[in-house]
Amino acid sequence: MAVTEADGSADAETATASVVGASGFAGGELLRLLAGHPNVEVAQATSREYANKTVGSVHPNLRGLDLRFSEPSDLESVDVLFAAAPHGVAMDHIDAWQDAADTVVDLSADFRLDTEPQYDEWYDGHTAPEYLDDAVYALPEISRDDLAGAELIAGGGCNATATILGLLPLQTAGVLDGADVVVDVKVGSSEGGASGGKASSHAERSGVVRPYAPTGHRHEAEIEQELGLSVSFTAHAVDMVRGASATCHVFPDSPVSKGDLWSAYRETYGDEPFVETVAGGSGVYRYPEPKAVAGTNNAEVGFELDPGNERVVTFSAIDNVMKGSAGQAVHAANLALGFAETAGLQQLGMHPVGSP
Amino acid sequence: MAVTEADGSADAETATASVVGASGFAGGELLRLLAGHPNVEVAQATSREYANKTVGSVHPNLRGLDLRFSEPSDLESVDVLFAAAPHGVAMDHIDAWQDAADTVVDLSADFRLDTEPQYDEWYDGHTAPEYLDDAVYALPEISRDDLAGAELIAGGGCNATATILGLLPLQTAGVLDGADVVVDVKVGSSEGGASGGKASSHAERSGVVRPYAPTGHRHEAEIEQELGLSVSFTAHAVDMVRGASATCHVFPDSPVSKGDLWSAYRETYGDEPFVETVAGGSGVYRYPEPKAVAGTNNAEVGFELDPGNERVVTFSAIDNVMKGSAGQAVHAANLALGFAETAGLQQLGMHPVGSP
Amino acid sequence: MAVTEADGSADAETATASVVGASGFAGGELLRLLAGHPNVEVAQATSREYANKTVGSVHPNLRGLDLRFSEPSDLESVDVLFAAAPHGVAMDHIDAWQDAADTVVDLSADFRLDTEPQYDEWYDGHTAPEYLDDAVYALPEISRDDLAGAELIAGGGCNATATILGLLPLQTAGVLDGADVVVDVKVGSSEGGASGGKASSHAERSGVVRPYAPTGHRHEAEIEQELGLSVSFTAHAVDMVRGASATCHVFPDSPVSKGDLWSAYRETYGDEPFVETVAGGSGVYRYPEPKAVAGTNNAEVGFELDPGNERVVTFSAIDNVMKGSAGQAVHAANLALGFAETAGLQQLGMHPVGSP
Amino acid sequence: MAVTEADGSADAETATASVVGASGFAGGELLRLLAGHPNVEVAQATSREYANKTVGSVHPNLRGLDLRFSEPSDLESVDVLFAAAPHGVAMDHIDAWQDAADTVVDLSADFRLDTEPQYDEWYDGHTAPEYLDDAVYALPEISRDDLAGAELIAGGGCNATATILGLLPLQTAGVLDGADVVVDVKVGSSEGGASGGKASSHAERSGVVRPYAPTGHRHEAEIEQELGLSVSFTAHAVDMVRGASATCHVFPDSPVSKGDLWSAYRETYGDEPFVETVAGGSGVYRYPEPKAVAGTNNAEVGFELDPGNERVVTFSAIDNVMKGSAGQAVHAANLALGFAETAGLQQLGMHPVGSP
Repeated sequence: MAVTEADGSADAETATASVVGASGFAGGELLRLLAGHPNVEVAQATSREYANKTVGSVHPNLRGLDLRFSEPSDLESVDVLFAAAPHGVAMDHIDAWQDAADTVVDLSADFRLDTEPQYDEWYDGHTAPEYLDDAVYALPEISRDDLAGAELIAGGGCNATATILGLLPLQTAGVLDGADVVVDVKVGSSEGGASGGKASSHAERSGVVRPYAPTGHRHEAEIEQELGLSVSFTAHAVDMVRGASATCHVFPDSPVSKGDLWSAYRETYGDEPFVETVAGGSGVYRYPEPKAVAGTNNAEVGFELDPGNERVVTFSAIDNVMKGSAGQAVHAANLALGFAETAGLQQLGMHPVGSP
Repeated sequence: MAVTEADGSADAETATASVVGASGFAGGELLRLLAGHPNVEVAQATSREYANKTVGSVHPNLRGLDLRFSEPSDLESVDVLFAAAPHGVAMDHIDAWQDAADTVVDLSADFRLDTEPQYDEWYDGHTAPEYLDDAVYALPEISRDDLAGAELIAGGGCNATATILGLLPLQTAGVLDGADVVVDVKVGSSEGGASGGKASSHAERSGVVRPYAPTGHRHEAEIEQELGLSVSFTAHAVDMVRGASATCHVFPDSPVSKGDLWSAYRETYGDEPFVETVAGGSGVYRYPEPKAVAGTNNAEVGFELDPGNERVVTFSAIDNVMKGSAGQAVHAANLALGFAETAGLQQLGMHPVGSP
Repeated sequence: MAVTEADGSADAETATASVVGASGFAGGELLRLLAGHPNVEVAQATSREYANKTVGSVHPNLRGLDLRFSEPSDLESVDVLFAAAPHGVAMDHIDAWQDAADTVVDLSADFRLDTEPQYDEWYDGHTAPEYLDDAVYALPEISRDDLAGAELIAGGGCNATATILGLLPLQTAGVLDGADVVVDVKVGSSEGGASGGKASSHAERSGVVRPYAPTGHRHEAEIEQELGLSVSFTAHAVDMVRGASATCHVFPDSPVSKGDLWSAYRETYGDEPFVETVAGGSGVYRYPEPKAVAGTNNAEVGFELDPGNERVVTFSAIDNVMKGSAGQAVHAANLALGFAETAGLQQLGMHPVGSP
Repeated sequence: MAVTEADGSADAETATASVVGASGFAGGELLRLLAGHPNVEVAQATSREYANKTVGSVHPNLRGLDLRFSEPSDLESVDVLFAAAPHGVAMDHIDAWQDAADTVVDLSADFRLDTEPQYDEWYDGHTAPEYLDDAVYALPEISRDDLAGAELIAGGGCNATATILGLLPLQTAGVLDGADVVVDVKVGSSEGGASGGKASSHAERSGVVRPYAPTGHRHEAEIEQELGLSVSFTAHAVDMVRGASATCHVFPDSPVSKGDLWSAYRETYGDEPFVETVAGGSGVYRYPEPKAVAGTNNAEVGFELDPGNERVVTFSAIDNVMKGSAGQAVHAANLALGFAETAGLQQLGMHPVGSP
């Protein structure tokens, strides 16, 4: 496969893809996206637990697909390999994956940080640190230029993605220089993955507003790396399945106006295909709302100014399984492989929608 | 527009469309579907209440669309007009709509029944009964042949659609001849429409298992008309926004085997693009499940045999806003206009998904 | 302890109680009820898994209680022992429990059926069948007289309880003689217990309308035993945590009037402290609703007449953890021990309440 | 009625009570609490809209009560009048209410602030400012001494209550002196009241993480008044019906230790009957959780220390209809009337419970 000037039209060449760890939530979402991708053909979906079963037996939305899980040990040679395994798996298999594919997009935390000391500060001992420096952070709004032709791409964390997208315009506009930033995140249960457990049982997890990792959340490391500032971060589990919402309370060093904020967001996101600024206005949905972007690769960002406290409040909302994981990965892969940036990612959200 | 042998490919001609009543849930869903339809261009979306506002101000999933509501009194001439107004509106405007469009697809109950006496039995006084006989019931699994070139199409009721799809194979196979049938339906809150009200407030409507119209539900009329049998019908509101699930308890006159049932469902739905039979198997999703088809035009149907009571239990699940309304309408319009049957309707569901 | 004519007043004597299996949902509910019971003092709450931890570490609503789990092997001598262990445990420990306590109330299925052949038909091999005949079914609306002084009480199944309460007036009035009955039950996730598992994870369980055991549900056995008729039973999981709702579609042999139905329900439940008849009327809550009785020992029952199909539809709603389990057990124990019937069970429900 | 040393025992005298605005959520909750209160007898429950209907026709949990709404214009003379009318009503009726009752407990915002200038800053024009100075803020943890014998009591706002309870120990310990404080609140739909509206319809309100009044929330005024510090406050609607959760991010001027925090919380709440400190530990519920206190007058408070950012994070959780409204009112009335402080308020929460 060698697509240099593809535009997503029908005559673009087609890439073959493997999805490793395809029985999890992010893996299933990759299969959903690639099934509708005009330039990608899924060659393989691996799952140790469900090998030889149909993908529809795990992901009911894919019952119509004629595809079965295969053993992860038996990798085919493909153009692009998407890995959706638990943290710590990718670092042990990255050599094999690089052999099997021109481009590897890893959705775990293994290659998100740039250096081994950073990694060691937040996680435990990396077994393939030599890849850290070259891996490109998957968020195109930050790393678009580096993604073209990238061989190893590291998908961002969902909470980090939501936070970074909300703050990026302020950073670009210099508003964050010397600012204090508090980040309060609300996330859905899909963030915990498909494996279950008592705390995530329906009876215990329904209706919660549950602080988790109230301090020291690992996604702080990514936020600090990508935005160059330290934030005070706390996450809460709330009653939804898909979705991450980040509210950032920013105290700038010098005053900003609402016009400054609009300019900053327009400048940063005016040409971005997957980011919409929503700030005030009328109707029911005046600010970013996770359920409005459920099932899509869109992020909504917005802001409000609190003159009384000289505070800027930013809001951002994503579908953690999409923009926060599988959608971001496909977006990055499109850029790496030279496809149209939005190929396979033009799903619209739903209205009404309950608690997706 | 004159498409005679369209196949959905890029060179098919394009139809212009109006959506009347576009600020409601079904109207918004039509806009979502038509925005991604390869052969349809939306010329107009009407709303008296929101005229001149962007469609995204009401439907947050459509914020990216450059389209504003227009006054319903000011209809453009189009190829196809979709009407998503409350019951009783269509009968008063059908003359004007027929003037404005070659094909009218009405999603209300106004033209679902074939005769004025039927209508009068279940509703109040029809003002345009002369259209009843010619209107084609929109459900392609029942009326595919009649839909080609139809000028007036009546979208089926969501509960009726779910019930009919679950029972149709049994009717075709003769299992319903002389059978007693109890239908127990569970539906989401979107069925009540966008207008709100105390009973549908979040605080009152959350977590309910609320019998409504426990007897005498109007959709019985459609079921009786389309399947030729009377059923004992009861509907319950449950805690979801999108979705309708029908469980039919069927007591046949003579015994049937599981093999008979599989044959019946395969024969009826083997070639249907939007109906999947799900009956038993392994994993979490062994029977039809509304959330697995949320956002899609798919119906899932299934069955179980209860030897102890000589009972067949059928299950069917749809998204009431899609297969039960807007999706069914687009499907019917595709057939009426000669487009590929699945054009604009190939959305896959999501997994996981909460309570869509 | 020897209370013969207690009336629940302050001078009644006090019984000591053990709760075996106190870390599960029903066990925790027993602790909640007994903590507020004027005549019972909890001597012991056992849990193998959580021995020596506070009960509040598992049941957050009991954080204020000064009570720790003890090992189940180390039973104290008490007046009444409540057992809330999984099915199959009670039959292996019933001898020891009878030694330790004057009265044993077992909430599992082990002693619900009257004979070994019945048990063997629906479950697997009983190890203490000699107790089956003497065990009293806990539902006071059926077995009040037998409960006084009972030494072994078998708590009814939650789905069976809801169904029996809905149908009991019809049985008493003779309406069920020769009638066909379809029972369609909707239940919450707490019915699955505290142990979790993939199918009951929040991401998979949220928003479902999931048929489970669509035929052959074991609670049919209890319904048949207590009401003397065979029913066609299907249960669905829906999105709530607490609650069971049974809709029974009854086809009587001869016609009944609405007046007949009101008479039947009044006669059966007019003096019952925990059953309310709710049938039609105005407002949002016109029929029995699980969320209206959440946290209480109340059952709501109601009905509607469908003249078109000569059908009676009955509705009943309970909190499965209360009237369907722990509340029923305490109610039965009150009668067995001679306490005021409603002692410890006078909690009112909440309004509004979401999805308890 | 003249109870001077009541202790809640059976021989305490009984006060008569009116509930004005009894068809709303807080009014219904007052009826629930007073129905179980050993020292209060409800003489009257007013509702203009539902006059002459039973209270159970609006509040399904109260179907068992023999009580009908009366016209609000026809007030009886009582010992205590609870007013649960919308904001702005109390100030117009306070003279009449004071005439009718020895003690008035108003749950609206009308008398929460101490001075007319404060009121004018956050609301619009007070019509009875002469009462502002004498009204006692209802939160006993702050104003216990002033509540004894109080004639006018102003119930606190639910978000303010949650915030104040979380921060109070830090204020008392001096940690808030010079500190920056960000308050991020999550609330349920019952906070919007019983009147409904499009934004609070189930279809639109389900599954939201919706910023509302992201800046300039009126409850800031109460927080500032009671704690003497200005906070940066933002509230979000999330998917629950009952519950308010406040996460406060506090940046003290000088470092504090975890031991300091434990001491502060113990000192403030060690003897409080309705506040529990929950901070870390094991199990599923390690921090304050609204659903654990649903239906109760309990508040849970907790904290965590973030050494990296020199930040203290506090968490607090209440049932907004109880501790945040009706429960707080009854608690205050108990103190004002000389009853046992916990009379009528000893409900335990439920486990499991979904999204109450």
